[in-house]
Parts: sequence; structure tokens; C-alpha cells
Amino acid sequence: MSDVDPSELLALCKRRGFIWPSFEIYGGVAGMFDYGPLGCALRNNIVDVWRAIYKGREGFVEIDSETVNPREVFKASGHVDEFSDLITYCKACGAPFRADHLVKGFYDNPDVLSPEELEEAFAEHGIKCPECGGDLGKVEEFNLMFKTTIGPGSSRVGYLRPETAQGIFVNYSNLYRYNREKLPLGVIQTGRGYRNEIAPRQGMIRMREFNMMEVELFVSPEDKDWPRFPEIEGCEITLVPNTTCEPVTMTVGEAVSKGIIANRVLAYFVYTTKQLLERLGIDPQRLRFRQHLADEMAHYAADCWDAEVLLSYGWIEITGIADRGCWDLSRHAEFSGQDLTHFIRFDEPVEMEVERIRAKHKALGPRFKGRAKDIAAAMESKEASDVRDGKLVLQIDGETVELTEEYFEIVRAKEKVAGKRVIPHVIEPSHGLDRIFYSVLEHAYDRDSEEGYTVLRLRPEVAPIKAGVFPLMEKDGMDDIARSIYSKLHASGVESYYDGSGTIGKRYARMDEAGTPFCITVDYQTKEDGTVTIRDRDTKAQRRIPAEDAERVLRALIAGADFASA
Amino acid sequence: MSDVDPSELLALCKRRGFIWPSFEIYGGVAGMFDYGPLGCALRNNIVDVWRAIYKGREGFVEIDSETVNPREVFKASGHVDEFSDLITYCKACGAPFRADHLVKGFYDNPDVLSPEELEEAFAEHGIKCPECGGDLGKVEEFNLMFKTTIGPGSSRVGYLRPETAQGIFVNYSNLYRYNREKLPLGVIQTGRGYRNEIAPRQGMIRMREFNMMEVELFVSPEDKDWPRFPEIEGCEITLVPNTTCEPVTMTVGEAVSKGIIANRVLAYFVYTTKQLLERLGIDPQRLRFRQHLADEMAHYAADCWDAEVLLSYGWIEITGIADRGCWDLSRHAEFSGQDLTHFIRFDEPVEMEVERIRAKHKALGPRFKGRAKDIAAAMESKEASDVRDGKLVLQIDGETVELTEEYFEIVRAKEKVAGKRVIPHVIEPSHGLDRIFYSVLEHAYDRDSEEGYTVLRLRPEVAPIKAGVFPLMEKDGMDDIARSIYSKLHASGVESYYDGSGTIGKRYARMDEAGTPFCITVDYQTKEDGTVTIRDRDTKAQRRIPAEDAERVLRALIAGADFASA
Repeated sequence: MSDVDPSELLALCKRRGFIWPSFEIYGGVAGMFDYGPLGCALRNNIVDVWRAIYKGREGFVEIDSETVNPREVFKASGHVDEFSDLITYCKACGAPFRADHLVKGFYDNPDVLSPEELEEAFAEHGIKCPECGGDLGKVEEFNLMFKTTIGPGSSRVGYLRPETAQGIFVNYSNLYRYNREKLPLGVIQTGRGYRNEIAPRQGMIRMREFNMMEVELFVSPEDKDWPRFPEIEGCEITLVPNTTCEPVTMTVGEAVSKGIIANRVLAYFVYTTKQLLERLGIDPQRLRFRQHLADEMAHYAADCWDAEVLLSYGWIEITGIADRGCWDLSRHAEFSGQDLTHFIRFDEPVEMEVERIRAKHKALGPRFKGRAKDIAAAMESKEASDVRDGKLVLQIDGETVELTEEYFEIVRAKEKVAGKRVIPHVIEPSHGLDRIFYSVLEHAYDRDSEEGYTVLRLRPEVAPIKAGVFPLMEKDGMDDIARSIYSKLHASGVESYYDGSGTIGKRYARMDEAGTPFCITVDYQTKEDGTVTIRDRDTKAQRRIPAEDAERVLRALIAGADFASA
Repeated sequence: MSDVDPSELLALCKRRGFIWPSFEIYGGVAGMFDYGPLGCALRNNIVDVWRAIYKGREGFVEIDSETVNPREVFKASGHVDEFSDLITYCKACGAPFRADHLVKGFYDNPDVLSPEELEEAFAEHGIKCPECGGDLGKVEEFNLMFKTTIGPGSSRVGYLRPETAQGIFVNYSNLYRYNREKLPLGVIQTGRGYRNEIAPRQGMIRMREFNMMEVELFVSPEDKDWPRFPEIEGCEITLVPNTTCEPVTMTVGEAVSKGIIANRVLAYFVYTTKQLLERLGIDPQRLRFRQHLADEMAHYAADCWDAEVLLSYGWIEITGIADRGCWDLSRHAEFSGQDLTHFIRFDEPVEMEVERIRAKHKALGPRFKGRAKDIAAAMESKEASDVRDGKLVLQIDGETVELTEEYFEIVRAKEKVAGKRVIPHVIEPSHGLDRIFYSVLEHAYDRDSEEGYTVLRLRPEVAPIKAGVFPLMEKDGMDDIARSIYSKLHASGVESYYDGSGTIGKRYARMDEAGTPFCITVDYQTKEDGTVTIRDRDTKAQRRIPAEDAERVLRALIAGADFASA
């Protein structure tokens, strides 16, 4: 456990304008936070670093899809049926609780218990309402999606998306065409996700409205390599495999060759996550990658790793990196009836015997009339392997049509085949942006033992304010010079903060607490020789530079140059 | 009317990956669009220009608040009671319609008609269901907010915000403290807004889920000037005042001195909007600022202007700039019971006779018990002018408490007064991001008459791809050189696109249609002298530059340098 007190950190966040509990003037809403000026800037900077890696370095494309989705999407994704927690209400006071949270301490993994097991556990251990001591009611499923209706009437049910990923999956065909029908196809999206928590606590760790940065990489199931893998093959990483459950440090190459990480493309993006998080300021000593346990992993996942950081709350997952196999696109193909495949072209066409579905037009006509032609075409675009128990199920315009062998036959033919259709596999690094944001703050949180105040040692690249700009005193024209330096820096995109009030020491303290890495002071010498002092937050080193060089020097420092020579 | 066919433009948007109708594989949802790779980049670039002006140049701060809000917020803002359209359903087929849209052509301003007047209009003009010819039902109000519930049960009603502005207003106290209790205080926010349209048409002009860029500038009611006003005082702008309803071009200074725009700060931000839109690529000839008519203006607004652009749909509002007076903060102060004021300090304290509310503790005690002290404090923090009809209404923790004179008295006293509290006024430039995005595309849409294909003449600063990078042919190592130029440019943040397939002419055409301003071609000469050709989309001019200068030259061109000398 780290020795940061989260309530102290949240108090700093509130005081300095990083994070404010939402709707405070109306009494607040649990699990909701607003990003203040410093928080919004820090968060945007985190997103920019993530973009620089995925868009800039890897060449992935970014999209932005809707947050309100019709029910069909989450029926296919499984969220309508599976995205729930178990709830119980106090019979006396009516307060709602997550049932598994009430039996913590009695069981190792309370979240695997069934409603019946939980009810028995209440009885066995005499568990009562933590608010009023009353008896607890039945344990039931509570779906965690925010529900709404689209358009007038209650005809079209919609949900706020629990993840941004589905917006990428349902656009697969558009994206595949944009990428000229080639794989790999890497797509990123950042935006809101929603989870209507039963009773959220734990500050920013469990939010009802949160922010994600998701990456969906579509690859051929036959090619799970990555061209840049050799660049990081020899780099070390700390893993907690699900076989031993003990942390072990090894190279990425070893992890793959020993079969600990399932394949090279997944391993590459596990390591990319490490690069991203450390670049944002996560302490490498408080970062590990834990493999999902067999019973924790989704049934379709080939492999799944959580990036966990040590916070005052314990080890907390902030990013998950999974090989989801063909699950997501298979489900949407099934529910939408659309072709969501990739065509692998053989080096040269191969003659093979194939099975084809042939529609029986004479049978279709009387039943489907004007739609018979469309239905025949949809049938014939299916594979023979789609026929199950003698039946073919189509989704046409959202409607399910079931066809028996009365309506089609399967014929065998020799064909020159140019290639084959496969459903792409998905490699998904999914980042909890708010948790990353909070972790960056906790790992930057420090006390200046000499001065006795708090310092946020945010890395210059992500710090919301890059430079404080001060006049020694607000007189003799020093304030005008400082204001003009501030304006030029700030307008050029080097975010700055002008401060002329209080002692210089107080102004340093304010900037240190806001995580500002550098301060520039205009003094009497500035008026003589045009130089200003620049101060480094972490070493407190100072040097003089020409005022006109301030932008260049700061840009070099933000890019990582040495303070003494930048 | 412009001669762009919107369906042709939307087809291009879809083909090139700017915009895709949402959830198409499930049949789509009207009024919802996803931003594809080019669209997402273009939109992000638009936001960056807006940020550069408001954050960089003006020094405003940015926040990010929640999209799901509890009912209290929109009760105070008026949206629960007022944010609605009139709806009617067909009695035969059940289809819903906006009632006022059905009587268009019969009335100049159908949106001012009451439900009764609309029903009469249906009868008088024999208006039937446009879908099936059936009779239309009663005309009713339909609230346009998406409704949901926060947490389990249906106890806490929430809505998806119809605008981002309220998230700024409810954070006023936090923001005011962040700004060290000084005005002016400028705050910006970009993000989603939601409007559950009855039957949206008109493509991106009317979306159910949309994006906004809002600016809320809090100013003292006694100071409606702006320090930078003199910089733009002499600049010309085209206005349509509500007195003449005729477009007239004059300087900003004239518009204020003649009383056409209400004050200097509002005029400054009307002009800032012109600067922003033109920088994004809006054609100045198809841009005007129209003043709201007296009956169109909100009752509390001191003045309101719409930036309108000429599109294929006609003149369409894409930004509104309003002086909203003290309305927003007054409402939230009233409904939350919180103090949302600014303290204007006098040059020196003034002795004056003041009226104060004094709580009658003896009366409060028996009624309010443990809460009496808090209620007394809340009462005494109010002004005597808050007492109306002998009653004082408090909002405490979301509860309304009405107190008669039994519980307080008003006392007069002489006090040295250091200053006074005022409710700040709000200047609000509110931008419809999707409409701006669409307008930028329409105004960039052109045909290359020589080549016979479409060109998007997007300004380099906003274009999603800055440079196409081509090898003359994918052989003899030219492809490797081109790929390496592409990677370096793209990773450095100059968004680029590698294309090696088809003739150079085809590749230019693809880039022209995507709005890419520059193309770089690697040819045999590159292997000899290290130079590449660079081509300008709009003039088709070409020159050779050293490959290693590509990033520098492109950055200069994006910043507006001359093609021949950059």
C-alpha cells in the first residue's frame, strides 16, 4: 500500500481545480466527477500521449461513435443479458446494496456467488443492512446500463454505452473499406462510457460516468505477429502469470516463447501499455501485468492481461489487454446478418470442392412475395456451414427469418477458389482514462520535506501548466514584461500561468502543488539584459536564460531535455 | 442557395470515411452519425482551432462536466418545463410528427402556434398524415430530453444534457474560486449534447446526439467592455439587425456606437466568432450575423446574434452569441439556495444604512430542531431584497423551505460596507460543432472542372490529412523511402497517408477528394539527390524540396506560408 491518503489527494484536487464532485450545489451525485481547469488539461494531455503512440507511431485511425445506442447493439454484445451486478434492498429502510460487497471477508471471491448462495450467506453470517440494521431482501440481478428511449413513445429502447468498443465493432465494414480491405486494421476511440453503479464509493475508481481510451486491432487469425515486435523483444516486463500467481520479471520475447503470453501481437501491446503508462508518469515499481485467472477470463478470450497499479486502494486495474478472438465480430455478424469478414487471398487460386447454398425460388416466392429475391440473395451469400440442424437463420432488416430445407438445398461443386473469408480476431488494449488520471496524480503526489508542502511531480509532457510566469514584484514594469512573456507562451500552446501576488516562495508553492514543472521569474536584471530565471520544480535548480528563448527552452524541457543545457 | 447537393456530399463523406450513419448494420437510427477516421480528425482539428482562440489567445479555462445530470439541474435551467416540441401522432398508423412542420407553407412562423391553433390548422387545411393519409391526433408537448434514472430504483430521475453550458453554471463557485474570485472569468467546454428529436431529417443539421463547443464568459454587470476591443473596433462585419432585417456591413465599433450590438464585450465575441469560422474555412460571402427578433429572443437575454451560413439547406444557424444577463446564475442560486455572486470591492469602504435579515431562533427551534442553526445561517446569508410578500424561500439540500415573518425580522443598521455582491452576467458564444463541421465541408466542396472530379478545398490547418506520400512506383526502393518519409511525418504529428497503388493521377484524385492539401512524391531523382516533389492541391503547382525538409516545409505551409517560398 502506498502512503497517500486518498481523501487528502481528493481535497488537493478540489482545491486546485483538478476534480470537483459533480452537482455539489444540488447535494451531489455519487460516482460522478467533473474535470476542472487543471484536470481537463491533464486529461487532454494524457489522451494526446495515447494518440501519439497509437495514431502517430502505429498508424491506427481514430473514430468517434455515438454514446446512445439502440438495444440491438447490446443484445449482440451480451450487455443486455450479462452486464449486471447482484442487488439487495434493505427491507426496513429501502437502501440498495451490491450483495457481493456485503459478504466480503467471509469469502475469497464473493463475486462468483449466485443469488441463492448470497441469500444463504446473509442468513448464515447474520448479515444485516449496514445503514439501519434491518433485514435484507431478495438478491436479484440489476442491469448496469443506463436505459432511455430514442424518439417519441417507448418503442425504441436505447442504452448509454458501457464501453466505446461496440461503436468500433458495428462500424467494422466501414472501417475495413476505409483500410482498402486490408488487415491489420487498428482503430482507436476515446469518449464516455456509463455504468449505473448500485452504490459507488472509492472516489474516481468507480464512476457512473467515465472516460475510456479504447483500441481495437483487427488481425487475421492466421497472423498474430507484429512487425515492430523485434524492437521490444528484449525489453523486460513484470508479469503475474495465472499459473503461479507470483510476479516475475522477464523479457517480452521470453514471455512469448515460454507460452506465458499467448502470441506476439498481444505481447507487443502489453508492452506498449507499459510504455504508455510509464510515459504518463506511472511508477514502474508500482506497475505489474496480471494475467486473468482461468475462471476470470471471458470464455471466448484467448488470453487477457490487466495492467495493475499500486494505489492507496491496493492493486487496481487501469488497463486491460485482451486477445478476444473472433467473438465480437461473430456476434454482430450473427445478430445483424451482415458479412463481417476479411478475405484472405491465396497466392494463387486453388481448385476445391465446395458446398454452396442454393435457394429454392419456387418455395420462397409464395411465402415471401416481393422480398423473395432479397432473401434468396441473403441465403446464397451464407456459407453451408451456417446451416445448423437443417435450418438457416437470417437477420434481414433487424427481423429474424428461419428457413428449413424446404427453401434451400446444399449443392457440391468444384470451383477455382481465390481465397477464403475469415472473421478477424480482435486485440483490445482498453484504458480506463479516469483511473489512469487518478493513478498519475497519486504516483506524482509527494511532500517537499524541506518546505513542508505538497508537490505534484507530474511529468512535464502531461502537466496541465508547463510554466508559471512571475514578476519579482508587480511594479517598475516587471509585471508588464511578465504578462507579455505569459501571453506569448500561452498563445503559442505552452500552457502558462501568470501569478503576481504574494511572495515568490508562495508562488512557487502554488505551482508545485499544481504540478507545474517550471517557473520563470522576471526581475530587475531582466530590464537590463533581457534574461529571466527559470526554475526546475524537482531539483529547485535555477538558471538564467534570455526571455526570448523561453518558448524554445520550455519546449525542449517538455520533450525531455536536460535542465542545465536545454 | 448553394449548388451543392447534400446527398452527394454525404455520399462522399461516407465513401471517404468522414461520416457514417450510426448503427447501419442494424438498420440505422435517424439523427445519429458516427465520425469516421477523416471526420474525427477534421472535427478534432476544428476543436483545436477553437481552443487556440479561447484558451490560448483569450486565456479562458476549459472544464469537462458530466453528460447525465440529475433533474434538479434542468428544473432550474428551465429545460424540464420548456425544452419541448409539439407532437402529434397519426391516428391510423401511429407515426409521430412535429406538429409545426406539418403546417409549413400555411404560416410564416408555425413554431409560435399553440396546440389548439395547430389542431385547428389541421382541420382548416385538411392536413393528414404524410405517411398514410390518416387523421392526425391531439397536439401535445413532447419534452426533448433523453430521460433515464441514476442508480437502482426509479427514485432519481436523470437527463442527458441538452447543452454543455449547465455544467459550467453549476460549477460557478468552484470556477470563481479557481480564478481567485476575480472577473472576468472565461470558461469553455466541448462535448456531447442530446436532443431527442421527434423525427429528425436534414442530415447533420438536426442530430439527436451532437457535439458542442460552448463558451461562458462571466462578467461584472457594471463592466461590459473588453480589453482587446480596440484591436478589432475598425474591422468590418455583416450584420442583419432586427430593426431592418436587412444585411448591412459596418465596423464593429459602429455597430456598438449605433446601439446595434448591445455592448463592447458582446460585439468582441461576435467578431471573434467571425474570425473563428473564417479560419476554419467558412466562406465570408456565405456568412452573416443575424440578430434575434424581439419575439425570438429569450425574455432574459439582453441581446442575441446568430452566425448563419448559407448551405444547400438555406441560411442555417451554426453559432449563437448571446448576452444572457444574470439569468443562469440567478436561477441556479434560487433553486440551489447557494450564493453564486461576485463581490465588487469599493475603492474604499462606504458607510451606509443596510437592511439585514435576522433569524428568530426561538421560533425556528421548535419547528426545525437540529436543523434550526443551519437554517438560521442560511436565512441570514440572504439579502433583505430576497424577501417577497413577507416570505423567504430557501433551498436547503434540494428541499424547499418557506419561512414567514414569524421566523425572521428585518433590521436596519449602519455599516461600513467594503463592497457589494452582484450576480455576474454571462456572455455565451455557443457553437454547434457538427453543423460547423458540415458547413466547413460544404464550403470546401468543389469540382475540378479540368479533371472532372470532386475536390475538398479544406484549409491546411483543419484538413484531416496534411500530406499524401507516394512512391512514383512501388519498386526500386522508392516505396521504402516513401514509407520512411510517411512514418517520420506521421509520428511527428503531421498527419500523413501513404499510397502506392494506382497511377499518380488516381492518387492525387483520392487525396483531393479527401481534402489533403499537399502531396509528396518520391521518384528516381530522390535516390540521386534526396529531393522529392511537393504538390499544392489548389494550384497544382509543384516544386522539389529536400526530403529531410519535408516536415519543416509542411509545418510552414499549414501555418499559412506561401507555397513557392516555404
